[in-house]
Amino acid sequence: MNFQEKLDTIVKKNNSLVCVGLDSYVNKIPEHLKTKENAVFEFNKAIIDATHDFVCAYKPNSAFYEANGDEGIRQLKMTFDYINKTYPEVITILDAKRADIGNTNNGYVKYAFDWLNADGITLHPYLGSEAMKPFLERADKASIILCRTSNKGAGEFQDFSSAEMSLYKFVAKKVAEEWNKNGNCLMVIGATYPEELAEVRKIAGDMTFLVPGIGAQGGDVEKTVKAGLNSKGAGMIINSSRGIIFAENPREEAKKLKDEINKYR
Amino acid sequence: MNFQEKLDTIVKKNNSLVCVGLDSYVNKIPEHLKTKENAVFEFNKAIIDATHDFVCAYKPNSAFYEANGDEGIRQLKMTFDYINKTYPEVITILDAKRADIGNTNNGYVKYAFDWLNADGITLHPYLGSEAMKPFLERADKASIILCRTSNKGAGEFQDFSSAEMSLYKFVAKKVAEEWNKNGNCLMVIGATYPEELAEVRKIAGDMTFLVPGIGAQGGDVEKTVKAGLNSKGAGMIINSSRGIIFAENPREEAKKLKDEINKYR
Repeated sequence: MNFQEKLDTIVKKNNSLVCVGLDSYVNKIPEHLKTKENAVFEFNKAIIDATHDFVCAYKPNSAFYEANGDEGIRQLKMTFDYINKTYPEVITILDAKRADIGNTNNGYVKYAFDWLNADGITLHPYLGSEAMKPFLERADKASIILCRTSNKGAGEFQDFSSAEMSLYKFVAKKVAEEWNKNGNCLMVIGATYPEELAEVRKIAGDMTFLVPGIGAQGGDVEKTVKAGLNSKGAGMIINSSRGIIFAENPREEAKKLKDEINKYR
Repeated sequence: MNFQEKLDTIVKKNNSLVCVGLDSYVNKIPEHLKTKENAVFEFNKAIIDATHDFVCAYKPNSAFYEANGDEGIRQLKMTFDYINKTYPEVITILDAKRADIGNTNNGYVKYAFDWLNADGITLHPYLGSEAMKPFLERADKASIILCRTSNKGAGEFQDFSSAEMSLYKFVAKKVAEEWNKNGNCLMVIGATYPEELAEVRKIAGDMTFLVPGIGAQGGDVEKTVKAGLNSKGAGMIINSSRGIIFAENPREEAKKLKDEINKYR
């Protein structure tokens, strides 16, 4: 089963496009957990157990774990292992925003796909497809390319324009038309840019988008869903991180987001 | 002492623009070391001891360590600790090619600057300066922005052009004119593109460039040095990885590269 088949299956089973972003920085987790052994993993485990039937995916961001060095990476690995063993039907994405030259990318491929056993990884486009081959050639795993990021200053380079189009659209065109030979590409489009999301949908056919920026970052659910759905009424993995994992009741928040998204599908 | 002062001091002391890229993938190190405890660190330590007076910088690439999970990261930390303790005057660069949104970049800042205590880190420009503030605001550390990468397919996006200029030049202009308020920015320009290197030199004044692509990747030393020197006869950190670390005699190779570079300064 490839990434898209696995995603379609869990989206249908849980009737959900929700991705929970496990941005579990050790300094931010509740006091009573901090003193525990493997505190970050224990925090993640509780979130995962509470939300697994309302989501299609989990997305730990590597930065929050790297902040704690090899110890953080060890607990990131425990988190992937736990999801893969306990809820193997749920998608796992390593949000790592990597990209180096070809030879070097083999290291990141090993880290993300083989050691952590993530189903997908987020990637920068800047070095071009030739450099990204080690990722793209892994037909069993998803390469999730940054197209339009959710941050306020995203346009500094992403809106840089040729006579025909802006850079983020050029990235979308390249990924949709050339990079996706194995049907394993997705793109990142921020929920904070619904107009750009609609533009990329026109370029990318039914390709699945990873959509961050809902919740703490201010993205609007209705606008996002209406702008981003594909012809099958899906095609999006909609992420919320802080809005769910640091909520008083993560299960309730995950269900609320799932239901709100489904209202507009 | 900030990054540039530290760099100027070691460049003068060792009369060298050479950076050794510690791309020490565990599967590639000699058989007799592989069975040792901390084999990758021991391999690095031998290289560092053999070359420290011929270089201005060391640049481990995070990918080769991440490939080995938390264990790899532990030995990466040992490597940084060893350089910082034994040869504290030598520059250390974490080649990690990171970049996320602002909030998340704090994790990478902590990983690279505080935990590993690297003097600088390589960064993707795609998200723009607003996202990169956590790096840029660390005036004591260097933000080394990808401008023109050394790989064959670098032009796919980097040559995307507006009416005025191509993207890599636009990145160079932004970094030189707007990102460098703290005087802590450098740019990555591949030795495989000497013409582009000369173009960026015109844009960036005396800014220091990190120049990979010498050696195994085929960059020419004479062309690179002539195209890239700044008005002070320096302004480049010229990296060789495989050409030095997997050579029979790394000390000899480092000295040879140092001398060859100095011939054209």
